[in-house]
Amino acid sequence: MKDQTRTVGSLIDRAGVSIISSVDRDGFPNSKAMLPPRRREGIARLFFTTNTSSLRVGQYLADPKACVYFFDQRFFKGVMLRGTMEVLRDSAAKEMIWQDGDEMYYPKGVTDPDYCVLCFTARSGRYYSSFKSEEFEIAGD
Amino acid sequence: MKDQTRTVGSLIDRAGVSIISSVDRDGFPNSKAMLPPRRREGIARLFFTTNTSSLRVGQYLADPKACVYFFDQRFFKGVMLRGTMEVLRDSAAKEMIWQDGDEMYYPKGVTDPDYCVLCFTARSGRYYSSFKSEEFEIAGD
Repeated sequence: MKDQTRTVGSLIDRAGVSIISSVDRDGFPNSKAMLPPRRREGIARLFFTTNTSSLRVGQYLADPKACVYFFDQRFFKGVMLRGTMEVLRDSAAKEMIWQDGDEMYYPKGVTDPDYCVLCFTARSGRYYSSFKSEEFEIAGD
Repeated sequence: MKDQTRTVGSLIDRAGVSIISSVDRDGFPNSKAMLPPRRREGIARLFFTTNTSSLRVGQYLADPKACVYFFDQRFFKGVMLRGTMEVLRDSAAKEMIWQDGDEMYYPKGVTDPDYCVLCFTARSGRYYSSFKSEEFEIAGD
């Protein structure tokens, strides 16, 4: 794939939904649709808002192994990013991606204890396009 | 949830895409978009077509733990079904869900060794609607 960060980044930016997956304590994969990432740093790091009380947060605290998947149904393209998910509850992280209107989900505002940040760090990926899949590595920090 | 099989079944039937997830040998969840199930028996069993040579088939042969996720982006609804995925390569299973036009993907027809059936058996689920999640069990055979 030419210009991996641009090709995959563009697919992420155009996707209306993120599918995030975790592994539960019984070893089963768990998947869920979430809003697109609130912020991305290349394709190596993605930030999402979520509820601290959510099932997924508890699963990531117990096992940070994660994948995030984006797809374009019309053009049969998809990308899976494999990596780890960190749960951030410090005010700097929470303020960084807070947006006006988030009060609808977190009535107490940016300090709402039920508001937290999921920070995903990708280590590798798999890109699907034109009926072919391609694995790729992602450089770390 | 009232009439679980009907509510969840209707969400499955309206979804344009299935997200299937597995766990890889390093313990990471892996997710992928696939076509809607070719056949479903209530919500306890779903059948998909796929390539025998695909990454996912290899993962399910090593670890059958799976989840299948369907969502309705417009109405913020989703359902995750947890269970096991079986890889069927016998001709009865392959013939059962074969359709005209599948030659496009499997040029050798219904006996194409690269064509196989994924049979998902659900044991439990989690339904999301109106900003609330609900766990449910699914009766076995």
